[in-house]
Amino acid sequence: MLLSKMVGERSKENPSDITIKSHATMMRGGYMKQVANGIYSLLPPAKRIATKIERIIREEMDKIEGQEVLFPVVMPRELWEESGRFDSIGGEMVRFTDRNDKGMVLGMTHEEAAVHMARNTVSSYQQMPFMIYQIQTKFRDEKRARGGLIRVREFTMKDGYSFHISQEDLDKYYDRCFAAYERIFSRIGMKNFISVKADSGMMGGSVSHEFMLLTEIGEDTIAICDDCGYRANMEVADCILNTFDYGTDCASEEVFTGDAKEISQVCEMLSIASENTIKAVSFAIKDDTEKSCLVFLRGDLEVNEAKVKKIVQGEILPSDLSSSELVAGNIGPIGLSLKNTVMLFDESLQGAVNMVCGANKADFHIKGVNIARDLDVKKFVNVSKAIDNAICPICKTSHITLKNGIEIGNIFQLGTKYSSAMKMTVLDQNGKAVTPIMGCYGIGVGRAMASVAEENVDDRGIVWPMSIAPWQVSLCPLKVNQESVKLASDTLYSDLQNAGVEVLYDDRNASPGFKFADAELIGAPIRLVISPRSLETNEVEVAFRNGAEKEMVAIENILSYVQEKIATAMAELNK
Amino acid sequence: MLLSKMVGERSKENPSDITIKSHATMMRGGYMKQVANGIYSLLPPAKRIATKIERIIREEMDKIEGQEVLFPVVMPRELWEESGRFDSIGGEMVRFTDRNDKGMVLGMTHEEAAVHMARNTVSSYQQMPFMIYQIQTKFRDEKRARGGLIRVREFTMKDGYSFHISQEDLDKYYDRCFAAYERIFSRIGMKNFISVKADSGMMGGSVSHEFMLLTEIGEDTIAICDDCGYRANMEVADCILNTFDYGTDCASEEVFTGDAKEISQVCEMLSIASENTIKAVSFAIKDDTEKSCLVFLRGDLEVNEAKVKKIVQGEILPSDLSSSELVAGNIGPIGLSLKNTVMLFDESLQGAVNMVCGANKADFHIKGVNIARDLDVKKFVNVSKAIDNAICPICKTSHITLKNGIEIGNIFQLGTKYSSAMKMTVLDQNGKAVTPIMGCYGIGVGRAMASVAEENVDDRGIVWPMSIAPWQVSLCPLKVNQESVKLASDTLYSDLQNAGVEVLYDDRNASPGFKFADAELIGAPIRLVISPRSLETNEVEVAFRNGAEKEMVAIENILSYVQEKIATAMAELNK
Repeated sequence: MLLSKMVGERSKENPSDITIKSHATMMRGGYMKQVANGIYSLLPPAKRIATKIERIIREEMDKIEGQEVLFPVVMPRELWEESGRFDSIGGEMVRFTDRNDKGMVLGMTHEEAAVHMARNTVSSYQQMPFMIYQIQTKFRDEKRARGGLIRVREFTMKDGYSFHISQEDLDKYYDRCFAAYERIFSRIGMKNFISVKADSGMMGGSVSHEFMLLTEIGEDTIAICDDCGYRANMEVADCILNTFDYGTDCASEEVFTGDAKEISQVCEMLSIASENTIKAVSFAIKDDTEKSCLVFLRGDLEVNEAKVKKIVQGEILPSDLSSSELVAGNIGPIGLSLKNTVMLFDESLQGAVNMVCGANKADFHIKGVNIARDLDVKKFVNVSKAIDNAICPICKTSHITLKNGIEIGNIFQLGTKYSSAMKMTVLDQNGKAVTPIMGCYGIGVGRAMASVAEENVDDRGIVWPMSIAPWQVSLCPLKVNQESVKLASDTLYSDLQNAGVEVLYDDRNASPGFKFADAELIGAPIRLVISPRSLETNEVEVAFRNGAEKEMVAIENILSYVQEKIATAMAELNK
Repeated sequence: MLLSKMVGERSKENPSDITIKSHATMMRGGYMKQVANGIYSLLPPAKRIATKIERIIREEMDKIEGQEVLFPVVMPRELWEESGRFDSIGGEMVRFTDRNDKGMVLGMTHEEAAVHMARNTVSSYQQMPFMIYQIQTKFRDEKRARGGLIRVREFTMKDGYSFHISQEDLDKYYDRCFAAYERIFSRIGMKNFISVKADSGMMGGSVSHEFMLLTEIGEDTIAICDDCGYRANMEVADCILNTFDYGTDCASEEVFTGDAKEISQVCEMLSIASENTIKAVSFAIKDDTEKSCLVFLRGDLEVNEAKVKKIVQGEILPSDLSSSELVAGNIGPIGLSLKNTVMLFDESLQGAVNMVCGANKADFHIKGVNIARDLDVKKFVNVSKAIDNAICPICKTSHITLKNGIEIGNIFQLGTKYSSAMKMTVLDQNGKAVTPIMGCYGIGVGRAMASVAEENVDDRGIVWPMSIAPWQVSLCPLKVNQESVKLASDTLYSDLQNAGVEVLYDDRNASPGFKFADAELIGAPIRLVISPRSLETNEVEVAFRNGAEKEMVAIENILSYVQEKIATAMAELNK
């Protein structure tokens, strides 16, 4: 590729309105262009990277017997009604009516399409297990797109769906897919990634894992125990609190707290720790005007909404207390009896004494509350967010740390949610009709690209791993207007290309600084410089984007030298 | 790929409700599955063919310095308002509102997105010419989907957009792209295709060509002169009528015709040829309630609506005469004066004498009309459809034939329609801002597949060309339950795969007839059969899907034999 003809503009300065460094760098490097909020066009460098990531994904999917197919982007509403998700998914799914007045949706995931393809076309256990996957455009109408390609509305995704006759068979395949995902991330050059136990969200099903790139810019929080290896997304992370001295158990009594409504205000007024308080958080349940939900937990903790959703089996929203009998800022569990309200008590309250809670009347709290003595809690549930330094719920000895991460892939055991709703059966070994058990497996291509960029960005551009670099080599002749330089460079360009090496040839008559800046932005791992001086000794200067020592290599050896460097780097990533 | 695990069901009988043979065959071969009207999922065989077609397209685009990019499927309404097409394109473009109340469209073509990418990122003539292309999903809400993958609503398309500083430069590139298209169609194994002059339709611009596969099932009609090579889509085909003897010129007079309204009825009643009549066809102009259009042409001809549209510069619809002053069935040009009506006289009427036309009152026509004498036509226009056997408008000696075709690709010279509307400029050699001239180039991947299938379908399945066959080899062991057969077949499967040969391995324990039927449906060019009998002489039976003579080949030579057959077939297609 001649850089002089390449579409895209590179600039010296990162755009000032973008906070994520890799995003800013990709924008100033002419990798992509924003068309609308969360919608981008990919220019040649980003498209080339995406193609390479897709190729690696495809190879790994094919290794675990994935069958590549193609589902539609636009699907009929009926298909989503069969699974029940036409109603259960919110505004993030685009719905429209076609010119024949049929309801249509834009695919944001393809479980329904996968079952549609497989039912009636797979009829016997002998064809199982099988996995079908596609690499295709998806659209999710996210409220908040952010971080360039990290959270977009339109994106290319590999999504795979496996079908099994038994749970054991799914377990086995799930593990193979898990391993394939680890290979994919390693091969595209991702370093600091982990897998974590995750919430299945709108997919349904039970077991699921997310692959996370650990990075400060990540939107997800992960609880990690370095000792036993426990890793879980905050949405599902359990939490065992450290021992806390609640103080002496005493009789309960009302206390005037006036305007003190927030936990912090109450603590200050009564000179107590937030651990000694009972926090109340109220939620409305979506599409259920009859019922609401009230959560009690220890005052230093936050409610884990994902866990509450699971318990109430519906979407929850912060509730408006103005029309309720509850006194905002003074809500407490003692003596409280509410109709049509699910009351949840978090495990953090179990056994606590000497606690302060709202008295259910303005200006008053109750102190000296002993949970076991003063309340009749039938069941404590786990609805609080894990906190940094809590005891690991698995090994129960070490402590967990919270880290930020970007979700780079996820795998789910779906059970029979879709196959059963959509009435897919196959005949088993005994000729009996059974409902297949499914798994599903996703990776976003653009997000993978952005994540590798985030891990490999420096002030000058992106240090792309050899496996997904848009070009393997930047060829930067200096003083290209000199005949000898031009001739040697043209020859080398054509030799490299004929040997299958991917070269970005900076054929412009520009200053070294200008050329090097562009080469570093685009980040080919190897940079070759031919100059009048290097030609004096018939040599090429080789520089490496990762900072390794420069070398001078004889022109007659440069092709094999470059090929070897590429092969070594690829072997390192593939091992 | 093991056939036993492949998703998809093959059946013996073509579906009875499908009239196009290749479509029916692909349905019964498990190539694809319909999800909604004009929307299909591709199963592994079709997806593999599509991938191969895409690879060939990509190679040829890269050879003419195409730069692969990716535009979004979902685009903001504003972008289409800039070009004016948000309003000018009808219901075939899907429009919806996102959750932030922004108007969005589904891309059915990407001129706007291409200009959006290039403007501000290409600033100088030195970066020109360049061509950007993508292979991406498009959605057109066609009223009538038909023919399986031939006319669908959702499809994968390669669309490319070139930018030039001068018309000469565009002409040069257009020719290169034309040649690339010819190579693409040859390489995917298409045989009976031609290029034709075409109408630019909603794309705008002047010069454009369509590539057409000539086939009886084609929806398009093409006028072809075998002598001088003139080829044009009916929409733009000119027509010179053969000499016709109109008879003696005589005075005009009214004649009672009663209920005879249709041309055929009038001809019968008056015992004249349809060439001796003047047909009147009335149209409403869309979005213009003020104006209508009335076309007069020779009675044996049909109106070419594409040509009328160009003249009135708007969409036209059959008009409802009930509320007009016109007398349906008795409309004629003599003495007719209409307000707000564009009257068009087709060239076929020029110089005609002894003609019959409506008298503009019920039950009467006028006979003996001499166009030159009785009418004051300022200008005759070309608004009739070319007819079979008319004189070629170019060589004016030979005659044209009308043939049916499927449009398999098109290329357009767009001029500055988009670059100018969207305010893209670059600096030319003199530092002056100029508006780039554009070309655009499209090929539908699925339609290419369906077209090759139509050309290569027989009663048993599809005879895929080697270049795009889903698999190069079908390996069909017989009596696979015999250990020796299984062992030899497994070994051959793995040897072929390791050598990079694409094999569909029918590992099922089934009858020869059953296996061969599936192999022929899926149409790998080479079929290898290992059986207890062939093993007696350590041989493999080789059959060819194109009907070439079967051969017996020693097992130890089979790999190199197959490789050579593949190489020869590929060389033939690539030459």
